[in-house]
Order: sequence, then C-alpha cells, then structure tokens
Amino acid sequence: MKAWNEECAVFGIWGDPEASRMTFLGLYAQQHRGQESAGIVSLNEGHHIIDKGMGLVGDIFKERNLQRLKGKSAIGHVRYSTTGRNLVENAQPLTAELLNGPIAMAHNGNIVNGDVLREKLKKAGAIFQGTTDTECLLHFLAQDKRNDLGACLKDAALQLEGAFSMVFMSHKDMYIIRDPKGFRPLVLGKRKHEEGESYVVASETCAFDLIGAEFIREVEPGEIIKISDEGIESERYAEKPGKLSQCVFEHVYFARPDSEVFGKNVYTTRKSMGKVLAKENVVEADVVIPVPDSGIPSAIGYSEESKIPFELGIVRNHYVGRTFIQPSQSIRSFGVKIKLNPQKAILKDKRVIVIDDSIVRGTTSKKIISLLRQAGAKEVHFRVASPPTTGPCYYGVDTPKKEQLIASHQTVEQIKDFIGADSLAYLSHDGLKHAVVGDEPEFNFCSACFTGDYPTDTFES
Amino acid sequence: MKAWNEECAVFGIWGDPEASRMTFLGLYAQQHRGQESAGIVSLNEGHHIIDKGMGLVGDIFKERNLQRLKGKSAIGHVRYSTTGRNLVENAQPLTAELLNGPIAMAHNGNIVNGDVLREKLKKAGAIFQGTTDTECLLHFLAQDKRNDLGACLKDAALQLEGAFSMVFMSHKDMYIIRDPKGFRPLVLGKRKHEEGESYVVASETCAFDLIGAEFIREVEPGEIIKISDEGIESERYAEKPGKLSQCVFEHVYFARPDSEVFGKNVYTTRKSMGKVLAKENVVEADVVIPVPDSGIPSAIGYSEESKIPFELGIVRNHYVGRTFIQPSQSIRSFGVKIKLNPQKAILKDKRVIVIDDSIVRGTTSKKIISLLRQAGAKEVHFRVASPPTTGPCYYGVDTPKKEQLIASHQTVEQIKDFIGADSLAYLSHDGLKHAVVGDEPEFNFCSACFTGDYPTDTFES
Amino acid sequence: MKAWNEECAVFGIWGDPEASRMTFLGLYAQQHRGQESAGIVSLNEGHHIIDKGMGLVGDIFKERNLQRLKGKSAIGHVRYSTTGRNLVENAQPLTAELLNGPIAMAHNGNIVNGDVLREKLKKAGAIFQGTTDTECLLHFLAQDKRNDLGACLKDAALQLEGAFSMVFMSHKDMYIIRDPKGFRPLVLGKRKHEEGESYVVASETCAFDLIGAEFIREVEPGEIIKISDEGIESERYAEKPGKLSQCVFEHVYFARPDSEVFGKNVYTTRKSMGKVLAKENVVEADVVIPVPDSGIPSAIGYSEESKIPFELGIVRNHYVGRTFIQPSQSIRSFGVKIKLNPQKAILKDKRVIVIDDSIVRGTTSKKIISLLRQAGAKEVHFRVASPPTTGPCYYGVDTPKKEQLIASHQTVEQIKDFIGADSLAYLSHDGLKHAVVGDEPEFNFCSACFTGDYPTDTFES
Amino acid sequence: MKAWNEECAVFGIWGDPEASRMTFLGLYAQQHRGQESAGIVSLNEGHHIIDKGMGLVGDIFKERNLQRLKGKSAIGHVRYSTTGRNLVENAQPLTAELLNGPIAMAHNGNIVNGDVLREKLKKAGAIFQGTTDTECLLHFLAQDKRNDLGACLKDAALQLEGAFSMVFMSHKDMYIIRDPKGFRPLVLGKRKHEEGESYVVASETCAFDLIGAEFIREVEPGEIIKISDEGIESERYAEKPGKLSQCVFEHVYFARPDSEVFGKNVYTTRKSMGKVLAKENVVEADVVIPVPDSGIPSAIGYSEESKIPFELGIVRNHYVGRTFIQPSQSIRSFGVKIKLNPQKAILKDKRVIVIDDSIVRGTTSKKIISLLRQAGAKEVHFRVASPPTTGPCYYGVDTPKKEQLIASHQTVEQIKDFIGADSLAYLSHDGLKHAVVGDEPEFNFCSACFTGDYPTDTFES
Repeated sequence: MKAWNEECAVFGIWGDPEASRMTFLGLYAQQHRGQESAGIVSLNEGHHIIDKGMGLVGDIFKERNLQRLKGKSAIGHVRYSTTGRNLVENAQPLTAELLNGPIAMAHNGNIVNGDVLREKLKKAGAIFQGTTDTECLLHFLAQDKRNDLGACLKDAALQLEGAFSMVFMSHKDMYIIRDPKGFRPLVLGKRKHEEGESYVVASETCAFDLIGAEFIREVEPGEIIKISDEGIESERYAEKPGKLSQCVFEHVYFARPDSEVFGKNVYTTRKSMGKVLAKENVVEADVVIPVPDSGIPSAIGYSEESKIPFELGIVRNHYVGRTFIQPSQSIRSFGVKIKLNPQKAILKDKRVIVIDDSIVRGTTSKKIISLLRQAGAKEVHFRVASPPTTGPCYYGVDTPKKEQLIASHQTVEQIKDFIGADSLAYLSHDGLKHAVVGDEPEFNFCSACFTGDYPTDTFES
Repeated sequence: MKAWNEECAVFGIWGDPEASRMTFLGLYAQQHRGQESAGIVSLNEGHHIIDKGMGLVGDIFKERNLQRLKGKSAIGHVRYSTTGRNLVENAQPLTAELLNGPIAMAHNGNIVNGDVLREKLKKAGAIFQGTTDTECLLHFLAQDKRNDLGACLKDAALQLEGAFSMVFMSHKDMYIIRDPKGFRPLVLGKRKHEEGESYVVASETCAFDLIGAEFIREVEPGEIIKISDEGIESERYAEKPGKLSQCVFEHVYFARPDSEVFGKNVYTTRKSMGKVLAKENVVEADVVIPVPDSGIPSAIGYSEESKIPFELGIVRNHYVGRTFIQPSQSIRSFGVKIKLNPQKAILKDKRVIVIDDSIVRGTTSKKIISLLRQAGAKEVHFRVASPPTTGPCYYGVDTPKKEQLIASHQTVEQIKDFIGADSLAYLSHDGLKHAVVGDEPEFNFCSACFTGDYPTDTFES
Repeated sequence: MKAWNEECAVFGIWGDPEASRMTFLGLYAQQHRGQESAGIVSLNEGHHIIDKGMGLVGDIFKERNLQRLKGKSAIGHVRYSTTGRNLVENAQPLTAELLNGPIAMAHNGNIVNGDVLREKLKKAGAIFQGTTDTECLLHFLAQDKRNDLGACLKDAALQLEGAFSMVFMSHKDMYIIRDPKGFRPLVLGKRKHEEGESYVVASETCAFDLIGAEFIREVEPGEIIKISDEGIESERYAEKPGKLSQCVFEHVYFARPDSEVFGKNVYTTRKSMGKVLAKENVVEADVVIPVPDSGIPSAIGYSEESKIPFELGIVRNHYVGRTFIQPSQSIRSFGVKIKLNPQKAILKDKRVIVIDDSIVRGTTSKKIISLLRQAGAKEVHFRVASPPTTGPCYYGVDTPKKEQLIASHQTVEQIKDFIGADSLAYLSHDGLKHAVVGDEPEFNFCSACFTGDYPTDTFES
Repeated sequence: MKAWNEECAVFGIWGDPEASRMTFLGLYAQQHRGQESAGIVSLNEGHHIIDKGMGLVGDIFKERNLQRLKGKSAIGHVRYSTTGRNLVENAQPLTAELLNGPIAMAHNGNIVNGDVLREKLKKAGAIFQGTTDTECLLHFLAQDKRNDLGACLKDAALQLEGAFSMVFMSHKDMYIIRDPKGFRPLVLGKRKHEEGESYVVASETCAFDLIGAEFIREVEPGEIIKISDEGIESERYAEKPGKLSQCVFEHVYFARPDSEVFGKNVYTTRKSMGKVLAKENVVEADVVIPVPDSGIPSAIGYSEESKIPFELGIVRNHYVGRTFIQPSQSIRSFGVKIKLNPQKAILKDKRVIVIDDSIVRGTTSKKIISLLRQAGAKEVHFRVASPPTTGPCYYGVDTPKKEQLIASHQTVEQIKDFIGADSLAYLSHDGLKHAVVGDEPEFNFCSACFTGDYPTDTFES
C-alpha cells in the first residue's frame, strides 16, 4: 500500500549453542524490513549449511530446517525483492566457495556504483549468478589472492559507493562492516547463555529484545569489526565524514516503533513528530485519528499537544497480509477498504484530524478520506507527520520514480484538492529536524527524499 | 494466547451477481471469529457448488475457486475448530441431498442438548459423518417428510436448546434463524448492485461495511426469516423470553471493535468499560498502556477518564499468526515475547497501569508483567476491563475448563500475587452492566462466565 | 488411453501386528485397479482411524500416516473415479457412526438398482453425503435396529442388484460379502506373522503375493464371511444361481497377469487367447509384435502357435503416468506417441502382425497403425485377442457409451478401413470361451460387453 | 535397484516456433537418463528465460511454465544427482551473465581432471556456486576476453579430460561439442515445422522420434558445431584418436531400446547379446524368462537361439517409481518384491533360465532367485548378457566403488553360490564385442568397467 519499502534486514550471531534458532528469531523480529525471501547460513565444523526460500520467515523455517542448520554461528537475512527476475538466486545470504574457504554474506543497503563495478568485474572474468549488486563483494573477495579476509574486505569496501550494512561469515570468523556515511542502521549486542556469551549483530534492536540480548552500541559508520573465537576486534577502515547520512525515513516509517535506531527510540521520535506537527499547524476539530498502524504514535503526540481526543477511528484488519493474493479485479477494486474500516460510531458528524506518516502517490490518502466521509465525517483535516516526499531513495529502499511522487510536481494546495481533504498540512523540514534531534546542533541524517540533496555523487546503480 | 475463542461466523447473500465474491469478503471481514476452516456453498441453477478447506479464507479461496462457485446466492462459514478428529468433515457449511433437494447450512453457536438429540436420531437410523452437533439439524430435516422447509425448520428449532444463529440454503430459498434467547449476534442487510438489491446476513456488521451493504436490523431472537426471489418473509417461531441472553463477552473481547453488536458499537462499549474501570479504581501512575490489540479501546477510555497519559508501551509483532507454527520447545519458551515487546524508552522508571480485557488462566498476564519489569517499569498496576471470569461458556465458545480459570478458585489478592502485579483490579459486574447498557433498566445479556448463572437447563453437549 | 477402466480394488486384514502396512502394500499391488483415490481405515481399541486422499497409494500414505493408522485390523480401497463431483466425499472406505458403533466399508462393483434404493432411503430420512450408490449400504445398516451386523448385512445384500465384492469392518469384527452372481473377484488368504496368523481378503491374488500371504480360496458368490478374534464363520445368504456372471474382461484386460482370477492364472489365459487367435486367423508375416504392456502375453501365445518371431516392436515410455498432466493442446496432439514408440530397426520393410487385447473406440488403434507405417512397416495386420466390444458394462467398470464403441455400429471390414490396417481379425466368442475354460462344459462368465446379453434385469443405476 | 545409473541427457533446438515444448518432449523421452532434476533455458529476444526444478520432467513443467519459456531456441537437461549437497544449485542447464552476454550450458559426461581445473580457476578468482565440475566451463568462458564464443569453447575443451557431450546457448547462437574419444552419445537432427526447419540435438534418438525430427547423423567425437540463424557450421577442434571410447554400457543397459546409439539400434544389439550368450552357454531348461524390463530383449534373443520358450515369468509393478518413497524399514524389507512378482503358474516345477543385463552387487540377483524358488522353480540358471563388471566408471555414470562390485573380488563360481543359482554364466568379452560390432575389425568402445583398461590418464575428479 505504501509503495515505499525497506529492502532488507541482517542478523548475525557468533558462538551460541542456539545459533540458528536465535537467527530465526532475530529475522522474525525484523520481518517488517522484508517479506519476500529469507535465508540462514550456519557454520558447522568449518562448513556452511545454507537454507533460503521465498516467503515469510515463519513459513520457510520449520523445526527440521533449524535442526539441519547446526553449528554455533550463523548469519541471516530478510529481503524485500524489487525485481521479478531469478528471485531465488537473489535471496541472501549469498554464498560462495573461495580459494580460502567458504564465504557467506548478508547486505542491507544499495551500492550506487554497482553498474560500474559489475562491468569491471565481468571484464576480469567474473560470472554473475543473480541480478543484485551485492554479488560484487563476493567477486572482489574471489579476485583478491591474499589469505586475509579482513584486509580483502577493507579494500573492497573502499571501492563501494552507497549504503551498506553488511555481515560476512567465513569458516573461522565473522566480519561486520558499515558504510562511512552510516545510511542504514546496524547494532551490536551480546547474549548470555548457559555456556557463556555470544556476540550478535542486527539491523534493529527489536531483534535483541526478542532473543534477550543486551544492546552494546551501534556499529560505527566506517567501522569494520571482526568476531572470532578469539574475541572481538574493531578497526576504522574509512575516515569519518563531516556529516553522516543516517536515513531519517527509518524514524518516519521503516523501523519498528520499539527499536532504538541511530541512538534514538523510534516511537518517541514519531510521537515528537506528531507534537511538532500540532504546534506548527493545528485546526479546531473533535477527534484526532491515526491511519493505523504507522500513524498511531504521531497521532498520540498530536492529540497530547492539541488536547483534541485521540480515537481509533479506523480499524485495521490484521489478517490482511501475505495470505491475501487478491483474487481478481472485482475484489481488488475494494482496495484500501479490505484493510481499513472507518468507524461510523466515532466519525459521524465529527470534525476529524487524520494523521499519516507520509504521502507517496496520494491515491491511498484519497481513498481513506473518501471512506471517512462515507462514514459520516463532517470535516476531514489531513496531517502528515513528515515533509512532502519529492524524490526517490537510492540507498536501499524500494520507492516509486520521481514522477510518481505526488509532491514532486504538485503544491500542497493541489494535493489537498486531489486527496479531497478540507485542509492538508505537512510537518516542516525544520520541524522534522527538531523532532528527531531536538536541540542538538548537528543533523547527521540523509533527508534527500524530502530535500533532493543526495549525499553521494552517483545516485543509482 | 487468550484460550477463549469465538467459534464461528456465518454469512449469506441472496440474489447478487457477485454472490461468491461477496461471501468471500464477508468471511474475510469476519476472519477473527474462526481461523481453522472456511467454506462457501453457492447456488447455481438449482444445484449447490461446495468448496471447503482448512486454514484462512484468503489461503483457501483463490480466483479459480470463486469462479467455480457460480450462482447468485451463497452462504459461508468460518470456524474455530476445537477437536482434532476428522477436521475436514466438520468444516461448514454442512451439506446434504434430501428428498426435496439439496440443503446447506452454516451455524454459529452450540446446541447444549446435542448428545440427547444425537442419540435419538441414531436410533431413528441417522448416520453421523462428523462430530459436530450441528449435523443434527440436517437429520431433523431429512426425517421430516413435509415438502416445506420453513415448517420443518421451525419444528426442528423448537427441539434445540442453546445458542444458534443459523443460515440455511435450499435449491430455491434461504432461511435465517436465531435462537429465542439471542446468544449470538446475527444481522440483516441489503446490498445495492447494478442489477438491483440483494439481501445479506452476517454475524457482525463489519462484514457489511466491507461489501458496502447497508445494515437493516438485527435478526430477532426467536425469529425465522425466509428469503427467496419472491422477497423476504419474517415469522416468530418462538415466544420472546422475559430476558435475552445476548453474550456480553462479544463486547468484552470477541467482536471486532468496528462492529455494531446487539445494537451497540463495540469500540464505544469497550472505551466505556475503561472509563468505568477508571472511576471504580484509579491509582497514581505515569502512563496507561494497553495489552495490544484487544486492550486498546479500554485503555484509551481509562486514560481519558483518569487523565493519565496513554502510550503504546507494548508493541505487537503483527507477523505472528497462522504462519508461525512454533518450531520447537526452545522457541516456544519465548512465548508471549514473540508477539509482544515492551518498550524500555517508555517504561523505564515509570509507574505503569496496564489494561487488558480479561484474565483467563493468568499465565499470560504473569509473563507480560515480568516483561514490563524487565523493561524497567517501577510499578505495574494491572487493570482488567471486565469482571473475573469464573466459569466456562457452553454457548459456542471454546473456553478452558472451570478449574483452569484462575478466578474460579483464587481471590483477587491471590491472583495479584500470582501474576506479580503491584495492584490488581477488575471491573465490577455492575460497572460492566453500566458500561454496556448505560441507564437502561434491562440487562438483556448472558454474563454466566462472570456470574455462574447459566441461562439454560442443560449446560453442555 | 483405453477408456475401459476397472473401478476399484478392496483389501482387508484381521488380527495382524502390521495391519496398516499390509493394507498399504495390498493396495499398492492392486494400484492398477484404481488410481484416483485411496483410503485405509484401521481399528484400534474399538475406534476407527481414517485416512483417505486423492492420488496414488504411494503418494497418499507416508510413514507418518501408517504410524497413525494403529491397530491390528484394517480395510482399504483404491478407486477409479468416474465423475468429477465431490471427489473426496466419494473416496472409500466409507465410514459412519451407527447406533451400535462405527462401521467402515469398501466396495468393488456397481449396484444397478442404486437409484431406486437411494430414493427409497431418502424417503426414510437418509442424508446422502456423496454421489456413490455404495452409500446405500450404510443407510440400510443405520435404519436396521438389530444389534447384529451379520443379519443386517444379509438382509441388505438381498435388496441389492448388481455387482458387489465388499468388506465391512465394525469395532469388533469384519464381514466379507460377494454378490450371488460373482461378477467381481474376491479372494481369501492367510498371513503368517510372529504372533500367529491373520486372515486377509483382496480383489486379486497379486496382493497376497506381495505381503507373503497364502491363498486359501475364492470367496464364493452368495457367501458372507465373518472374521473376528473368535475365528472365521461362513454362511451362504443367497442361493447359487444356475450360471455365474464372472467378468471375462478381468481375464482380457483388467487383472494383473500374475493374479489368479476366478481360479485361473491370467497370464496363461491371455496367452491361450493369443494361441486360439492364431489358430483361428493366421496370416503370412515376418514379426508378431504386441501393443505393450497389455498385449504382450497374447502376442507371445500368437507367436508360439504361428511360429512367427515375437519382437518388442513398440517400446513404451514407462514414465508416462500420473505425473503427466498434458500441458496443452500442442502437446496433447502427440497423443499415443508420447507413450509408445515403434522401432524402425525392427519394423522397416516388414510384414507386421500387431496384437492388442481389445479395440474400444478405434482411435488409438488407428494412431498406432499410422505410427507403425511411419516406422516403415510394409504390411500391418491387426489382431485382437478378444471379440468385438459392442456394449458398455454396468457392473463396476467405467466404459464409454454404446454409441462410442466402434464395434457397436461398424462391421469388422469397416473398422479395418477406419484404423487403416491391411487386415483385421478378432478372436471369436467361442474362441474366447475355449481360451478361458478349455473343455469345461460350463462358461460361468458374463461376456455381455461382447454379446449384449446382460445378466441382470436392471442395467444401470 | 541397479545402482549403476546414467547421469544425464541433453537436448537443444534452434529456430523452432515451439522450442520450449519440443525441449520438454525431448527431455520427457530421455527421462530414463536422469530423474532427479530437469531444466530448460529458452532464448527470447536476446534474453535467457530459465526454469529448473527437482523431480520428473512432467512434474516440473506445466503449461504455464512452458508459456513463460518463450522464444524460438532452447536447451534442456535431465540429471541423476549423485551427491546430496546444494541440489538445486547443481541442476542444469547452468547459466551465467558474461561480459559478452548470457550463456547457458547442458552437459552429459564427467570431467576427470575437474579437481585440478577447479583449483586453478579458484586461484584465478572464480567463485563456484555448485559442486559440479561442469561449472568450470563457464569460468573458462568468463576468463577468456575474446568476443568469440567458438574460439573460447575450443580452447576450453582442449583443457578438459574425460567425457563430455555438451550444448551451449548464447544470446545469438548455439554450440554443440563432443569429447574427442566420444564417450557419451550425441546426435543431430532436423525438425520440419510450419515456418521451415529447425536443428535439434539430443543424447538419444528416441527424443527425435517423439518430436517427429529426422535423424541426420551423430555429432563426431572431437567436433564442434555452431548453429545460428545463418545456418550450421562444423569444425574439428581435436584430432581423431586411434580408437574411440564409446560407452558399451549404453548398449548393455543405459539407453532406451528404441534408440540408435553410436550408429546401432540398441534393442537389436541387446538381442544379439542374448543370442551370443545362448551360443556360448546353454543349459537344458523348460523356460527362458527375463528380469524385466532391461532383460527382455536379451531373453528374446536367448530364447530364439536356444529354442527354449520365452515367458514373462516375472511381472513388474510399473507403479513403483518416483512416488514410492519407501515409508519405513518394515516395508523397505520387502525390497525387490515390491517391484517384481514371479508367477507360480509359469514357474512351478520348471527348470528356469533367467536373463539379466548385468550383476552389480549381487544382492538383487540373490533376492530374485530366492523369489523364483519360492514360486516353485525346480532349477534356476542365471545368465548375464554382459561380462562381469569389475570396475567403476568415471565417465559420467554413477557406480558403486570397486570393492562393492561383486565380480571385482569373487569368481563366477563364488558369485553363483552367493546368489544361490544352480548355474551362472556371463557373456564373454569377445562375445560382447561380437554382439555389438559383428565382424567389424575395430571395437571403438570403452569397456573399462569389464576390463579395467581405462582410456584416460586421470580416472576421477
């Protein structure tokens, strides 16, 4: 519905008697970051055991799969696939047999100079199996003759432009690496178990909560970490840039509200966005309602600030999801209605403020407003808890093209008319900054989808 | 998790060019009332077309199934199956070829004198295929020689004791029948389409919302309605009892919040329960949080009344569901945590009031409180938006045995200690009444699960 | 391809530590008698355990199914389904809960007065779940109040007209019953095992060979046998008719060549048919080739008698079968060729006698002859090891309608022209008799499909 | 059962309006050469469309798969997989995106210097996805910078030692290549269709028979053929060796009897083996019976030569196959019996000569003889239509290790005792030669599995 989708999550664990089960749970907790494919590779007596499939984590991995994934270390990945070609080939972790042994890798992000690298690698004799640029990394490793994975990885990473939070596992160690600008989140933790402690890495802290791991710290932008039976070693392979490019949309929409992302609690940030939005732009109304589920925290904030009562004016059918392959045109036309049901008892003859996290194409907002009016709302004031999205993302997110983003070519007034609201207001960019960093002087975030100010020379692979 | 499950929903539609698609959607909207099996029977040129399966509506019915279910009338059913034996045989609608033609039926409820009827029918030569008492109805019809379905149904209904909201479809008409005490909801509506209007019947009004049907009225307790191409006829087959036995638990937990049930909006009733609960029993605290999703409306009410801020202190993983067949003991032990994640950022060092709709065994509440404390809550005050559940239900609900209900043998103080709360309070029975009927003099509801005052002579089949 | 299909096989075993496994194997050996559905019901501590499915025995029953089918007695069934409606409902064994306990039944044959019985039973209040007439038997039992299954069965059997070889299992005994005219085969055996001996019953002796059971004797036409822990009792419930109606087509085509059917080895009988055919009608030729696999034994006989060399001139692709759901028209047009490949190296410039067991519609024979000529055959002489099939069967076989049988309305000369043979000859009816019974005076067989002389008053249900 | 399995078949077609359907049928006809996986790659507007899966051709490819495999050219492969690891990754055709475009390849055979090549390629930076040596070819092509596929292939082929019959498809042409010693068969044909003619290539001619293609000639050992829209070009890339190493076991067992292999009809050759065997070693007996199906042609030959009557003394259950995953130990113990049933009616009190194509471990022969004796055979004389198999094959066949081959360490007399025959005789190696090549002076075949005289320096990868 949103058409603005996070593409991946990664997970890794080293030295745990329940490695594959913890990886299963770690992916399960991060399912919202990718629903198309999932994979786990475990390390057992120097060999990799691989299991990947299309679909949800809970559908792919059953008890017998987990039992087969023996070993005390493992990495995993969930993916939101964007292209239809060769799907299973693209599922991660990617794996290969190199001269120095097996390697497996999981990647969240996007390499914007992938086309250039790909062509260069093909010229050097590389065979590409899938269509993802992530595969370039494996070829860099294959073509580097040194028997030193860390050194190879550092050199490879320096050739990459773009967003990458990655986990590698060989037959004897695990490497964690994050791009110098820090586009995507990556966190380090520790899990206590009966035999001692294991290190864990994940995209979001909600994965740690589920497996009972303790959050240690974020993996630093430009940092490479090695984990082995000898312990943990950290090194900076790239200089710290003047300003980081952490993805602000993680706070707006992608991340789970119960995660700590880039050092901040997502739910709290979202509530702040709602509060700032209320300060910037309030209107007389009877109720504040969220578009569930993503609009709930900002609606609570908006209500608190504006003192207008918060109500669940739209009920979401939580059975809508993977199982619902819409059977036909006649049913597809029901669209948003299948998922969201506005409540007459709450909305009838009311002046309604409805809060959503963002507007992409505008078509969903238009349908929601129409449903609210059918349910009897007297006035519908649409409030968006982020600025207008005017540009696509090239850093690991699946977004529509620029021309499909309604705010790229229409004014707020025009959008208001298109979606049929009585009034429309967005959070200002300053308001967004304030909601996210408060009074901190630096805004170490990429907000190119709102500003058009892209932080890399290359935009797209 | 709740172990207190609604068993069924029914749906029927007569004279609609999209009959099977509307039935699909009508069941889809009522999926919360039964997830184990689903079925649709359509009527095409005097013949029934049957399709039933195990699982969710969206998994069972694909486009090709709906295309096969031709015809302008259809009935459907979703079921929460309680016993493991012969599952598919028990899936509804039940169907049979009778002397006067085909018959299909869908039933929500439970016939408490089923054992007696079953034995009587076997003695008369009946063969039972499944293990549900619902099948008795078909045998009554088969053994009644009159070519008058309405007359047969009225006589049959008078032999039944218990809860039944039922829809029958023959080769030429549809009958709707509700037990005299009105245990389970059943609503009548009308859908406009390009060729005119069709009559629809459903367990909950949320089904009407999705298909764009207009709510006409509830089917009356003791009423039988015939719908055919000649139109609609209503008749009362049983006298109105002094007091109805509408299930109050529909308002406490079963029904979707956006449904109108027994003439009242469920969300509003739940919010009232929260308000009354706050009036009856408030405590000083920093936040009010719900156990999602069912506790949300009452928590909003509690917050409004108590002026203590409402927060989403527990985040629910909405991917938990049918796909998650818990793979093994080591994962099953994660239990509630897989579904619910308390947020440290909100709970740390706070005095927390947590609102749930009910407590069944107490084990889930105990785990939730433990998780809240791990997340840093300083005090945990548990508030339940209904009275203590002290008895099982025999009227179409799957409940634990009496001895498994913690409130049947422990005091509130003991329960508080068991679940580990700093304080515990339930809504009083009078408070419940007030929340549901306000100042109305009559309380036309069954609340036997709270009071032990069962409204039928027989309890259980 | 043949469009003349046996409909069923039955199996039963009483008092065996490996009851369900032996039933699995017994059905497996009889798979040629029905490939559409299969089922097993076992008896464990007075309860029936049921497992039925669509497809081949080896696909439906896996280790976990057999482990679930506990108990020391079991019955089973394979079925060739003729109508598309409600397939699973029609799969056998049929089961029911009667007043006196559970009953399961497996039936090979067809009840020609089924329509009459069905109507009569419906009038008495019976509900039919499936569309098979076999279900009538269960209703007779349900409506008979006596607690004496044997007595009920005998009375029920006397009301049936047609072909029935049936096995019943209650909670305490097994009954075996065969119609008075003996249409379908039914054999009794004994299996030795570590704990003693168990009785077994099957349609064909090849089932006994596989499980290592010893053949005792045929079940007599008009006989009812009771098997229980007390042993075996036999009774004749119907008088012996002047002439039996054993199906001669079992010997022509249906049965496995390695079975003993109606007291005679099928392979030997088929070889005799080939010998008699050679005696009746020989032609000068270079090779005798069979249409594999069914024509092989008669071609061997023909070659022996005529002294013309036998060759495998047509090779059959044994992977053709259940897995090959022909994907499209463009492939379906390859028809017979997908299954049968004539060998140029053997046929080129040869005068060929090709032997098949029968001709049904003539279209397959036409294609085979065309393929033989493409492979270089100089002359093609078609010989059929049975008389012209001029009428359908009503006794448990799936056959085309009379008008679709080419021999019902065309002379041998016309058929020869249609199929494009240089010459065509059928085995005479006297020749068939001689091949099957030799010099015995009595021909206790039904050959109505060749003669039109049907042995029952009613033809079809 | 045989444990001596052909590993693969290939197919290719260029310029055909029904390319993917013809490939489907071509693989279908060659299913006996590999049942574990199958794949088709079609070429559509310069792009490859890939579809591969585990299982039988008819199970993997349905109408929708074939419709998706658009284009006028295609290659396909069936595979008998020997190792359990990464099965899908090993399924062929293998594909890759090279600098000069996409490439797909299908291989029948085995590269005996694969380990050496693999290590060399890894050192040059190659990443291996699967575990088959076939992948080496793709890496040779990837590392060769010339934009001339033919030149690259020729150079690559010269580095390979062992058996290879291969088909390659790029975005603009198809290459066919066979090793200089000609281990595995590979044939060229032509198919007429409405739009003209297409070239086809296959492992066996039976594929041509099914699709109605005309056999042109064998692909020569050491030949490389290019097919494109410009036509066909042939070149010899390697000198003709003094003696070819065509696999004689193709004639003994692997190939379909209706194929022409290495210029000879397989059925005829097998019959000759039976005749020569009878000349070499006859015994007085009543019947000659084959072990079906592979022993049938040689038994016919033996019977013809010896004048002892041929009978189908053992009946094979043709439903045994892929569907039969033997459910448990108690059933597995039935072993050979599940597949083969000796006929008492034919064998009782007879002196029996039983013909099989070869003896591998001896255990199956032992069981067959035991079953024949149980069925009443008075004497059992075992005759094998090939010499004793004393060594494994390294040229694309899955065979047991040397020590598991009974003839590698036991005399004929000892084997006779082990299998329990009254007498045992094998075809002599001279007899085999004579049966295959008649009076030709040259025996251009590899018979290393009988003689231990391996035609390559390296034996095994």
